[in-house]
Amino acid sequence: MNKGQLLYEGKAKRLYETEQTDILFVEYKNSATAFNGEKKAEIDGKGLLNNKISTIIFEKLKEHGIDSHFVKRVSDHEQIVRKVDIIPIEVVIRNIAAGSFAKRLGFEEGTLLERSIVEFYYKDDALGDPFINNEHVDILGIATKAEVEALYELGLKINSVLQPIFEEIGVILVDFKLEFGRDKDGNVLLADEISPDTCRLWDAQTKQKLDKDVFRRDLGSLIEVYEIILARLGGK
Amino acid sequence: MNKGQLLYEGKAKRLYETEQTDILFVEYKNSATAFNGEKKAEIDGKGLLNNKISTIIFEKLKEHGIDSHFVKRVSDHEQIVRKVDIIPIEVVIRNIAAGSFAKRLGFEEGTLLERSIVEFYYKDDALGDPFINNEHVDILGIATKAEVEALYELGLKINSVLQPIFEEIGVILVDFKLEFGRDKDGNVLLADEISPDTCRLWDAQTKQKLDKDVFRRDLGSLIEVYEIILARLGGK
Repeated sequence: MNKGQLLYEGKAKRLYETEQTDILFVEYKNSATAFNGEKKAEIDGKGLLNNKISTIIFEKLKEHGIDSHFVKRVSDHEQIVRKVDIIPIEVVIRNIAAGSFAKRLGFEEGTLLERSIVEFYYKDDALGDPFINNEHVDILGIATKAEVEALYELGLKINSVLQPIFEEIGVILVDFKLEFGRDKDGNVLLADEISPDTCRLWDAQTKQKLDKDVFRRDLGSLIEVYEIILARLGGK
Repeated sequence: MNKGQLLYEGKAKRLYETEQTDILFVEYKNSATAFNGEKKAEIDGKGLLNNKISTIIFEKLKEHGIDSHFVKRVSDHEQIVRKVDIIPIEVVIRNIAAGSFAKRLGFEEGTLLERSIVEFYYKDDALGDPFINNEHVDILGIATKAEVEALYELGLKINSVLQPIFEEIGVILVDFKLEFGRDKDGNVLLADEISPDTCRLWDAQTKQKLDKDVFRRDLGSLIEVYEIILARLGGK
């Protein structure tokens, strides 16, 4: 499998074509960004850590019957994945009130929500990824009603698999963002990555933040906390 | 019916008890506010105009089988209404992209939406009435699933009655905000007011704004445009 033409460059990853039309190369970059790209840094080792963490999580999800675009990790910074047509909706699942959600709705940060909730954000950098409702999804024409149902169902199912996985390693899954795509048959498939870039992860004992909030809020070394997550997940 | 104790003072209205426990006096104030109260003014005649306009609209809705808290107008500034327990959700119906909606989702102001859409905002001044989804409604415990369905259904039904009423008088109903309450039997009942304070109304020919945007955006005399709406609705 050879890396072909650069297809897309995002804030944290690059996608390349391969000789197979339905397979892509993903390269995890060392870039860290926050606040819709306003805060930026290059952090050596970040791409490798997210590549390894994301690999372990996609593999664990697969063991639990949840398929994704992930095929396999092929190097420190690279995975091969199935090509999908990304649905421009960031699906956020929240178990505990934190960040902008807590502020907007008047919850104290750290409040356990009575049940896990799902939010949609319109994936559009120019608009700053605004929070949207199902009516907006429909009027924007970005997903069908059946796809919206699949996003809710898959989002909550993935949450119910990931929560105990993190619980076992002493980590609270506070909230996380998922992206999905349509495969060549039109099925909704988990895509993007699942890593401390896309999850809020708190140490269950100390409540120490083990995720990108360390970078967002200048709380210390991003690499150190991402290494904790990788090690606890059994990676090295 | 006598005005009793002041029960609640909002930005545009005061509510008073009466000798009947299930009936309230509403007094329409001359205050104009915008941007969550940051911009304020006292405008002589505003209360009277909104009282009269709201009366006509509630009466027209009644003729079309849509009940509300409105009982009758009793003076220039006052109505009597049925007492309801207000559901803290602002239900916004949009027919045409305008204002914050257009900006947030990247629609050009004035774009006709393919279909009318419904949005919920959490009625909480301290939080700035944030936009919420159905999941938030549930987690905040502010309405039941059945009530949420009623809000959607009533919102769209009221829209389908009001659109032709405004169309007949050469006015486009761009978007509007509704509030609902629970009556003593727990039924969801239209409440608050429907006026140029709570609707975006554009002249169908000239696209002149005939609503509170005149105040929000300093576009001229609020009274003059509210008087146009009252006159076209057949009031005086």
